[in-house]
Amino acid sequence: MLQLYFSPMACSLASRIALMEAGLDARYHLVHLRTKQVLDDDSDFQSISPKGAVPVLVLENGERLTESAAVLQYIADAKPEAGLAPRLGDPDRYRVQEWLSFIGAEIHKAFLFPFFWYQDDGSLAKPRARIPQTLSVPAAHLEDREFLVGNRFTVADAHLTWALLLLRPAGVDIAQWPSLSAYLQRMQARPAVRDAIATEVALRKTMATSPA
Amino acid sequence: MLQLYFSPMACSLASRIALMEAGLDARYHLVHLRTKQVLDDDSDFQSISPKGAVPVLVLENGERLTESAAVLQYIADAKPEAGLAPRLGDPDRYRVQEWLSFIGAEIHKAFLFPFFWYQDDGSLAKPRARIPQTLSVPAAHLEDREFLVGNRFTVADAHLTWALLLLRPAGVDIAQWPSLSAYLQRMQARPAVRDAIATEVALRKTMATSPA
Ligand SMILES: N[C@@H](CCC(=O)N[C@@H](CS)C(=O)NCC(=O)O)C(=O)O
Ligand SMILES: N[C@@H](CCC(=O)N[C@@H](CS)C(=O)NCC(=O)O)C(=O)O
Repeated sequence: MLQLYFSPMACSLASRIALMEAGLDARYHLVHLRTKQVLDDDSDFQSISPKGAVPVLVLENGERLTESAAVLQYIADAKPEAGLAPRLGDPDRYRVQEWLSFIGAEIHKAFLFPFFWYQDDGSLAKPRARIPQTLSVPAAHLEDREFLVGNRFTVADAHLTWALLLLRPAGVDIAQWPSLSAYLQRMQARPAVRDAIATEVALRKTMATSPA
Repeated sequence: MLQLYFSPMACSLASRIALMEAGLDARYHLVHLRTKQVLDDDSDFQSISPKGAVPVLVLENGERLTESAAVLQYIADAKPEAGLAPRLGDPDRYRVQEWLSFIGAEIHKAFLFPFFWYQDDGSLAKPRARIPQTLSVPAAHLEDREFLVGNRFTVADAHLTWALLLLRPAGVDIAQWPSLSAYLQRMQARPAVRDAIATEVALRKTMATSPA
């Protein structure tokens, strides 16, 4: 069975959404990202992955895979009939890769990560100033499309759904982009997405009162 | 014929390296990234890609593909016999995706991009403080390996070669990680890599005296 190291509402939520959309059973291990402890057994998360970052997917053969773009494509390919990524060789696969890179680099690493990990002490002014131009790219693309790629939900949608959810606590009101807020509502109406989010919101509340 | 929009020594260098390693002919269009002009004909780069960022690969069918991780995999798959990425379906393909994401997000967007695009006015202290931990990941991996994935040069190596080249002007001395400097030397000794870099270094010099 696949295993996912995650932290509630961190970017690993996209991987949980993908697993649940695919109907794949998995074992989930909660990680405290500040203390780098795995909650199951208080073991050291950095011995699982020296990066110390979620998601980490433990494959059936015991190998560990990191980086959302790779983990999400692995999950999609583990259950091809779920259609979470165009088949290998389909030109649309590159579009999924393009969105995964854009979300992981331009939204997550350029803005969300510094917002949540560094104090917003003025040093975020420049990344924040770029956010409108960055978000205008998916906003324009989704004007007349239901999903990012093709006519069905893919792992790129799982990734963008997570990023859009986190923009609000980071002080970006996506209501400025009606196509993005409509998209987020559509995605959140999907049972697997709704259940994945509900699970992590509930776990997040437990953590607020815990020492990490 | 494929076409690549690039700027000398920008991250699009990885795509040029991949094209040259694959022996694929391409047309190269030089872009001034600050003025967003295409040098060929002074046209507006943002009408080519609203992101205004290189690389942009124009495919044989005229479609435009952005994001290094997608562009690099496209180039690799355009010439499978060059072996620039494990075949689709090979588990090592996920390792290439993992490195492309790591380099594009954790080295490029987290550190190199803010260094070159925002003034280093103190706001870079936090990203800079993370660089040693970030670089320790490929450094440890390359202790006993010639390439990032498997036993041959892949597009992940093209990407990392570019990132390591840019770390020096960004004030990070990779001599601290002997496995990384040895790796960079090995990569630069490859004829295609050497030629790609020489071409862009020469073009870069022209630009320094030009108005952009
Ligand atoms: N490039 C990685 C980013 C992973 C990442 O930044 N994860 C965050 C949570 S959203 C984390 O675990 N941070 C802890 C740390 O960096 O110490 C990916 O796309 O998976
Ligand atoms: N996530 C993109 C990043 C592209 C990028 O940041 N390119 C830089 C040059 S290295 C650029 O064109 N910057 C111009 C701008 O952002 O205005 C990728 O991996 O291709």
